Amino acid sequence: MKQKRPELYEFNCRLETRGNLSFLEELKDIPFEVKRVYWLTQVPELQVRGDHAHKTGQQVIVCLQGVIEVVLEDQTGTVMSYTLDNPKLGLYIPPLWWGKMLFKGKALLLGLASDEFSEEDYIRDKSAFNGNL
Amino acid sequence: MKQKRPELYEFNCRLETRGNLSFLEELKDIPFEVKRVYWLTQVPELQVRGDHAHKTGQQVIVCLQGVIEVVLEDQTGTVMSYTLDNPKLGLYIPPLWWGKMLFKGKALLLGLASDEFSEEDYIRDKSAFNGNL
Repeated sequence: MKQKRPELYEFNCRLETRGNLSFLEELKDIPFEVKRVYWLTQVPELQVRGDHAHKTGQQVIVCLQGVIEVVLEDQTGTVMSYTLDNPKLGLYIPPLWWGKMLFKGKALLLGLASDEFSEEDYIRDKSAFNGNL
Repeated sequence: MKQKRPELYEFNCRLETRGNLSFLEELKDIPFEVKRVYWLTQVPELQVRGDHAHKTGQQVIVCLQGVIEVVLEDQTGTVMSYTLDNPKLGLYIPPLWWGKMLFKGKALLLGLASDEFSEEDYIRDKSAFNGNL
């Protein structure tokens, strides 16, 4: 199977004086069925979250407020950086990409995952991740 | 089929100094498969959103920040009110309940829907909604 790459999506967005509505639909806008939804709130300024990879799980993350600086790294050492600063942007994170997210400006993260939670799907040891070269 | 009722859920939440993680899993935590995810951002203070019902679509809404006052009304005139002020709370809105949401304190709404967008599923005429008594 071809190794998947990270990808930045731009979702549908309706800007109105009553507030801004963004939305996505499964399979039409993201490449998997959503099995788990999570949100990170009240994250301290300049906190780094993530710092793990998934063996098979896919994710799309959205920054609903503030700014999230994301650095993704695959097992060959390829590094890709993204600035999520608009709620209409979503970042697709394939399996086997190590992700670190820096939270700025009262950032709030929405995450959509392809699988239910399973600790076994996590790789939390960076040297083991890189050791798989 | 028995008419479904609104319901307040309390999701899993991990409170940490690095920020708070809340999450839900399909069918385990909410009674439908998520086909559409939407979010309302930069909603003006004291703005009312919603003001419609769905013919068949089911929703769960979450207030990620601030406070959302929700008033739901069914076609028999039953009214139920909820204050969403914590990101671990989710409100289940069944089909055929008219919903109004008042946004306070920089409120931010996350919505999960059972169906892809279809204008035909919306009832936007309140008198027609009540006229179906």
